[in-house]
Amino acid sequence: MRTFKLTLAYDGTYYCGWQLQPGQVTLQGKLEQALATITGESIRVTASGRTDAGVHALGQVVGFESETHLEPPVLKKALNATLPLDMAVVAAELAPEGFHATRHAVRKMYRYTIDDGEVRDVFARQYVWQHKSPLDVEAMQRAAASLVGTHDFSSFESQSSPRENSVRTIYSLRLERLPEPGGPRIFLEVEGNGFLYNMVRAIVGTLVDVGRGAQSEAWPAKVLAAKDRSAAGQTAPAQGLCLVRVDY
Amino acid sequence: MRTFKLTLAYDGTYYCGWQLQPGQVTLQGKLEQALATITGESIRVTASGRTDAGVHALGQVVGFESETHLEPPVLKKALNATLPLDMAVVAAELAPEGFHATRHAVRKMYRYTIDDGEVRDVFARQYVWQHKSPLDVEAMQRAAASLVGTHDFSSFESQSSPRENSVRTIYSLRLERLPEPGGPRIFLEVEGNGFLYNMVRAIVGTLVDVGRGAQSEAWPAKVLAAKDRSAAGQTAPAQGLCLVRVDY
Repeated sequence: MRTFKLTLAYDGTYYCGWQLQPGQVTLQGKLEQALATITGESIRVTASGRTDAGVHALGQVVGFESETHLEPPVLKKALNATLPLDMAVVAAELAPEGFHATRHAVRKMYRYTIDDGEVRDVFARQYVWQHKSPLDVEAMQRAAASLVGTHDFSSFESQSSPRENSVRTIYSLRLERLPEPGGPRIFLEVEGNGFLYNMVRAIVGTLVDVGRGAQSEAWPAKVLAAKDRSAAGQTAPAQGLCLVRVDY
Repeated sequence: MRTFKLTLAYDGTYYCGWQLQPGQVTLQGKLEQALATITGESIRVTASGRTDAGVHALGQVVGFESETHLEPPVLKKALNATLPLDMAVVAAELAPEGFHATRHAVRKMYRYTIDDGEVRDVFARQYVWQHKSPLDVEAMQRAAASLVGTHDFSSFESQSSPRENSVRTIYSLRLERLPEPGGPRIFLEVEGNGFLYNMVRAIVGTLVDVGRGAQSEAWPAKVLAAKDRSAAGQTAPAQGLCLVRVDY
């Protein structure tokens, strides 16, 4: 038995999210099917975390054990020849025995993309939140500052689980407007030691309420202090979210 | 009656091409439906040219006549609110009476995009030709030079129509490898006074045969001289092609 670590990119548009669900097309299901085809083994994989339906990844990390004699570069090629075209193995390597993709993750980076241009970018509709009015990015930047650091993020958690600790650390939260060939884009990049369920999308929805002028710049700090999900703004749509990197 | 000119962007992935076909979902059909919904008139539009199933546009141009009193900016907004999300009106303006989007086009620019990276870009699969081996772009550039100018392009025409003159002028044909976040990209941009059916895709397929080392750099000039479609290379897949601009 050897332990493998894969880095995966995927377009989540046509999947019911990462996690295996009977009767549903999931990313985990497709990966495990491909591994079974290649190795002949029934392999259960563990990911750094679930991603929801419609959420994308450039660097999802997955671990599993296998008796295969295939070396990582060969396994990578075989997987890329077997997986659907909207999934790809970006890197394959051996990991130390006991490597656990969920528990050993120390830092994650997510990117959220918004298109607030007057005319929608027809090529990006599955990868951005197409916001109907222009957003004040500078106001969003100032408002975001209050969320950086170690806080109880209960207000930004969609389903609170009583067992779970809601304290997380956000190392950085950058907002930037960049010109793109397809139209204006706002990128939000957030790095933290972990994220609660729907936390990034709740943060984005809250900052967008500031950006569109519906709330003051001071409001996200109040939302955070409230420790109550009903205090926060809307949950931003899934298709703008991408898991960019996981560090171990 | 006033004459309108629209500039359209569309993702052609889910359409049976531009041209109206009974029982098929086409871009022309969707546009005419939207115009009928907004104006109450039954409007027939004329485009700069047909695009095939899977081919995209950033700047398709369409003309039509209408009795609507809506001004172009209002019509643009109404269309963008009515059209499917993979179609968008980028510009709407009035045109001189008698404007004909097909016959009055004097210059067109197409872009073809190839991804020859080792790992496919999962987000671009509907917008690029994912080529399985790396291509020699410098060789393709040198080979492309022989195609620029005024020539009989019969060898690069998929279905020859006996009535039609196959002489066209290519003003420029640029090939460039650019770094992209998703992986390496080769962009081919070609400008001409008009293009025969499948001409750009046949040129791309022929140049790719050079880039992958299957044919010499001198070969495309011989293909051109042969005036025979069977002399040319494969037809590049539709999804890499985009109509970027039409000049009048």
